[in-house]
Amino acid sequence: MNSKKQIAIIGSTGYTGATLVRILSAHPQVEIKYLSSNQYAGQKYSSVFPEFTGRVDLECVNADVILESRSDSGIQLIDSVDLVFFATPNGLAKDYVPSLIAKGIHVVDLSADYRFKDLSTYETWYGFKRDDKDTNAKAIYGLVEFNRKQVNSNSSGSVIGNPGCYTTSSILALGPLLKYAAEKDIESIDWNSIIIDGKSAISGAGRKAETQLLYTELNESCSPYNLGGKHRHIPELEEFFNDLCKKEINLTFSPHLVPMSYGLLTTCYVSVKDPQFTEKTLREIYQKAYQCEYFVHLLDEGVYPKTLSVVGTNNAHVQVFYDAKTQKAIITSAIDNLYKGAAGQAVQNMNLVFGFDENLSL
Amino acid sequence: MNSKKQIAIIGSTGYTGATLVRILSAHPQVEIKYLSSNQYAGQKYSSVFPEFTGRVDLECVNADVILESRSDSGIQLIDSVDLVFFATPNGLAKDYVPSLIAKGIHVVDLSADYRFKDLSTYETWYGFKRDDKDTNAKAIYGLVEFNRKQVNSNSSGSVIGNPGCYTTSSILALGPLLKYAAEKDIESIDWNSIIIDGKSAISGAGRKAETQLLYTELNESCSPYNLGGKHRHIPELEEFFNDLCKKEINLTFSPHLVPMSYGLLTTCYVSVKDPQFTEKTLREIYQKAYQCEYFVHLLDEGVYPKTLSVVGTNNAHVQVFYDAKTQKAIITSAIDNLYKGAAGQAVQNMNLVFGFDENLSL
Amino acid sequence: MNSKKQIAIIGSTGYTGATLVRILSAHPQVEIKYLSSNQYAGQKYSSVFPEFTGRVDLECVNADVILESRSDSGIQLIDSVDLVFFATPNGLAKDYVPSLIAKGIHVVDLSADYRFKDLSTYETWYGFKRDDKDTNAKAIYGLVEFNRKQVNSNSSGSVIGNPGCYTTSSILALGPLLKYAAEKDIESIDWNSIIIDGKSAISGAGRKAETQLLYTELNESCSPYNLGGKHRHIPELEEFFNDLCKKEINLTFSPHLVPMSYGLLTTCYVSVKDPQFTEKTLREIYQKAYQCEYFVHLLDEGVYPKTLSVVGTNNAHVQVFYDAKTQKAIITSAIDNLYKGAAGQAVQNMNLVFGFDENLSL
Amino acid sequence: MNSKKQIAIIGSTGYTGATLVRILSAHPQVEIKYLSSNQYAGQKYSSVFPEFTGRVDLECVNADVILESRSDSGIQLIDSVDLVFFATPNGLAKDYVPSLIAKGIHVVDLSADYRFKDLSTYETWYGFKRDDKDTNAKAIYGLVEFNRKQVNSNSSGSVIGNPGCYTTSSILALGPLLKYAAEKDIESIDWNSIIIDGKSAISGAGRKAETQLLYTELNESCSPYNLGGKHRHIPELEEFFNDLCKKEINLTFSPHLVPMSYGLLTTCYVSVKDPQFTEKTLREIYQKAYQCEYFVHLLDEGVYPKTLSVVGTNNAHVQVFYDAKTQKAIITSAIDNLYKGAAGQAVQNMNLVFGFDENLSL
Repeated sequence: MNSKKQIAIIGSTGYTGATLVRILSAHPQVEIKYLSSNQYAGQKYSSVFPEFTGRVDLECVNADVILESRSDSGIQLIDSVDLVFFATPNGLAKDYVPSLIAKGIHVVDLSADYRFKDLSTYETWYGFKRDDKDTNAKAIYGLVEFNRKQVNSNSSGSVIGNPGCYTTSSILALGPLLKYAAEKDIESIDWNSIIIDGKSAISGAGRKAETQLLYTELNESCSPYNLGGKHRHIPELEEFFNDLCKKEINLTFSPHLVPMSYGLLTTCYVSVKDPQFTEKTLREIYQKAYQCEYFVHLLDEGVYPKTLSVVGTNNAHVQVFYDAKTQKAIITSAIDNLYKGAAGQAVQNMNLVFGFDENLSL
Repeated sequence: MNSKKQIAIIGSTGYTGATLVRILSAHPQVEIKYLSSNQYAGQKYSSVFPEFTGRVDLECVNADVILESRSDSGIQLIDSVDLVFFATPNGLAKDYVPSLIAKGIHVVDLSADYRFKDLSTYETWYGFKRDDKDTNAKAIYGLVEFNRKQVNSNSSGSVIGNPGCYTTSSILALGPLLKYAAEKDIESIDWNSIIIDGKSAISGAGRKAETQLLYTELNESCSPYNLGGKHRHIPELEEFFNDLCKKEINLTFSPHLVPMSYGLLTTCYVSVKDPQFTEKTLREIYQKAYQCEYFVHLLDEGVYPKTLSVVGTNNAHVQVFYDAKTQKAIITSAIDNLYKGAAGQAVQNMNLVFGFDENLSL
Repeated sequence: MNSKKQIAIIGSTGYTGATLVRILSAHPQVEIKYLSSNQYAGQKYSSVFPEFTGRVDLECVNADVILESRSDSGIQLIDSVDLVFFATPNGLAKDYVPSLIAKGIHVVDLSADYRFKDLSTYETWYGFKRDDKDTNAKAIYGLVEFNRKQVNSNSSGSVIGNPGCYTTSSILALGPLLKYAAEKDIESIDWNSIIIDGKSAISGAGRKAETQLLYTELNESCSPYNLGGKHRHIPELEEFFNDLCKKEINLTFSPHLVPMSYGLLTTCYVSVKDPQFTEKTLREIYQKAYQCEYFVHLLDEGVYPKTLSVVGTNNAHVQVFYDAKTQKAIITSAIDNLYKGAAGQAVQNMNLVFGFDENLSL
Repeated sequence: MNSKKQIAIIGSTGYTGATLVRILSAHPQVEIKYLSSNQYAGQKYSSVFPEFTGRVDLECVNADVILESRSDSGIQLIDSVDLVFFATPNGLAKDYVPSLIAKGIHVVDLSADYRFKDLSTYETWYGFKRDDKDTNAKAIYGLVEFNRKQVNSNSSGSVIGNPGCYTTSSILALGPLLKYAAEKDIESIDWNSIIIDGKSAISGAGRKAETQLLYTELNESCSPYNLGGKHRHIPELEEFFNDLCKKEINLTFSPHLVPMSYGLLTTCYVSVKDPQFTEKTLREIYQKAYQCEYFVHLLDEGVYPKTLSVVGTNNAHVQVFYDAKTQKAIITSAIDNLYKGAAGQAVQNMNLVFGFDENLSL
């Protein structure tokens, strides 16, 4: 008898899906049962990604085959699955999650569908109508370091909305300071001064056959995009921080593409006009916040986060500075956009849902 | 008779020096007479940089041979030179420039020695004592787009202090807005809110045999450095802007290394809390500032600067945004750190000094 | 009156076309009159490639507008053009070239259409039928270093078939040795032992929106393709060498993709089983072959070709070795695949056709 | 009581050493007890490589402290260790291995010291005198796929000489064909026609502060080195193949540097002039050779090895072609130079020595 948890990955041939497969195919307590890909249906997964030659024997199938069809004996295929990951474009998970949850199947959704408590925000920024308000109301925002208790208690089979990559990196950088400022009711902080300057690897743009994503267009080039308040991670961040701090915060967020395959660096700026506030204060806040965390590390003084140090891992590296002359707290963080920024964090969530060690196979 | 201007390059085997050689060896009106390199003295320049095989026949000589020795007939070698570029470490040019200027030889110094009107700032940040106050007092800060008149009038043989790479990119991004705000006496601008987030290619770190600059250490990695007010381009920027705006401005500047060989991107943030101020206002300021410039271009709406578009050229690409919700002006600029950020700008200065077309050979 | 030669570029928005625009827009004796792009027709060229902002003001038009339509006064647009570059997919130039040649318009075709004397070879490898045998019979293979006389004498308006990138690099590497061996009737050479191992930058694969050309698929990856005699440059090479040596030569050619944007390196192996043959012999052959060439350089002993040394130029760097133990001559060459391997060589051809200096603007 | 095997890594701060630490720090059955680094002695290992922050707590010590000093109770430190990895420069392991072996301590040497049965070859190519002939005579060449039995039987504590990176990749590519040809006594094979064209990532050049290894020197550049029979992996390959085939084989080997951090691709050519020999023959040879191997995979027809598919793993991907027209077998293989080409293979050897599953933690 196979006692391993059975897993389906819907959308397995994007970069996030492939990273899920990489982690889960080496996980001792789960078995990948289904891999969906509408584009590559019928093809061996290892022919799409030759790195899995001799490692993964599954064939890609259409998502609706997994989610809707029945076996010869009339049982829905999906009923034999313990947990479904959605690594699909936004707007798809929401159509399937309510019935999966109803069956008691766990769901970790890596798209944006279950990241927002306020569905009108989602509808405005993503353009899809929602009629799954009850399911969404029970969704858990899966940033474990801030929501571990809720994820842990997810025995009832609520959907977990896995955070965005920029969002994860930004929350890990800003969360401790903003929470501290809110709790201490620090007046010196300027809540509208927060600026996040993000630098993402190219894999963050997805695996789409577009001219602008070609090697020769992006190699040796650094450029911003979606400047001036246009990136969809802004409302996700604002909802999270408003909830964390009980303040209305408006963020400036500037994403950039950097010529590398994996990794994400975030440089955050906050005005703290308090002569008592020092780099030591800042350091203590972050030491306290992360000293018991397995994946998030405040680096030693003098060491800077670099994406290369976290790539291929679920780790996040954080460092803090206070520029006394300009009265700015500067906090930087580095993650792998596909691990802690997507698939790694999703498995971290899965581990907690199943009661495994949080870092199993990570 | 050779009517070409005779050029010496002191420090020709760093990346800045090699870029000078590349530009000048194709320049129709000048001839490279001397190339100095203490490290490679006695070697053919084309053996150090094989790209110059069949193009540059000179041998590297020690700097002091060029600057101090005499020919058999007793004439100083340097007397036959019309212009000397210093592409040397900081603290060297200052020892030679006064006597060169006295001889009527033009100097463009690519090090930091002649970038500061206030020598105490230089001494604090660079650690060298200065006893060339008179020479320094007449030095011209060679950012042509803002100081063209002074550079043009440099017939008297003043030294030109060629700006730093981050400085150039930041001034081109922020200069028009800050000048406008100062002239119009806009109260809505927050002079202490200015943040510059810079992303530099690796060549900006120089050509030094250090472990931290190895390919495998930097490839696929993005990281900040010198955070919290520690980079030497901060005082250079502050002196320039204080002079331009007649204000005391304190800047937050965060440099980052990006895995590419050439290019520099700057993302700048300024708080402008004025309901009348719009992206259109901003656009007009920059259109006016740069419409007659040959090298600096405000990009069309919707187009983002990318370093790849300017690499190998002396061009600068600028784009502007106004985030009305957070009341931030966001201005980005892209240059090639070795062209407009160093050697290209130095040749632009040289062209003006000699009365050539500003863009000759650029 | 504008005495500059008028140029049309058919297919201007691929990487080869863009490189033509880069070179020609700085060329003092020509003017780009038309840029065709069916994909981007109606768009400003500088919006497709922002690097040309402020440099190229033309709008892209459909190829047939340029090649077939008439002005209001009834004159064909193309009649005002002196030379047409085709930087188009294979199989297109052949439909237009006969009538252009008939009008006395010069043509440099960068596709494969006019590279083969034997049209049945072309038809077999490229799959297009040909009914322009007369035009093709007069076509000149534009590898200047071996065919300078023919290109020079092209006053009659014959089409020039511009060689492929791998072909150019391989001919520059192997040509002198094979020609020498054929002329001297060296029996020790094994004519069927020739192996060419090519390493190309990614831009060589073209500017097509395909998943396999995405940044994240190719970055940090090296791989072969078309192994086992499948690449179209094999028949091109064999026809050239058969003609040069009056032998029937069968080549082994193995192309590889290397993670860089520009550049092409070729490593060639030839069995020469002659105890008299030494590296010195080899060196003299190449010295003699290239000593008067402007673009092709035999490097000094001990210096290896590297693509970085030739990127952005029309230069080729060549180096030779003889492994006495295994009796193999090993010749390597490096070029920029888009310059000497495509657009640069095309302009070199154009310069000769118009009687300009061969290296003008290169 | 800790029942894990205790490990010392001599030379832990090069790229090979760091890869050993990465693999072993996640290995469930071993514990890293000592990390040596003369350069970084006294520093925390995680300060040299911040990726190990929170993962590895050891401090670097001098090699001789580990290998020669005693604890307070007079016991040699090294006596508590079960296995020593040498990831040191050539010529160092040989001085320590005889005494370690004598104590019954296992050794896996990643340098070249124990790769040669014929010590005169070693002395010629590496320049060190040897007086450990007995130890060397019992050394096992640790290419598991060809020498599994010997490695398995290493209970006596013989030193394992871990193969070079190019060597591993070349043997995996050529081994099955050459062994087959030798066993079948195929006359059609030309034993002196073998050419190996290798393409290595930059990390293969080591972690040395040299100008030629700087990012800006190597990025965007592909170049050969050590051409003409000069690379030290040639005698290693020749000794292996001479032994495998009982022939005297002289190889042509051409190494190249490719701009990527990790990975190694090998393209091999062998003349097989036999009309009966087909690609199918070749395919069957390799299928048979590797069908039971965990790490080495013959790819499906039509799939090419690419380094990206094996980077970060101990896998090797192999593909075969036969060019009937030129009668050449062409075999390509891809490995990660630091895993299967160094540290991964070393751990594979260690696993066998300790009787663990061959792929444990790999």
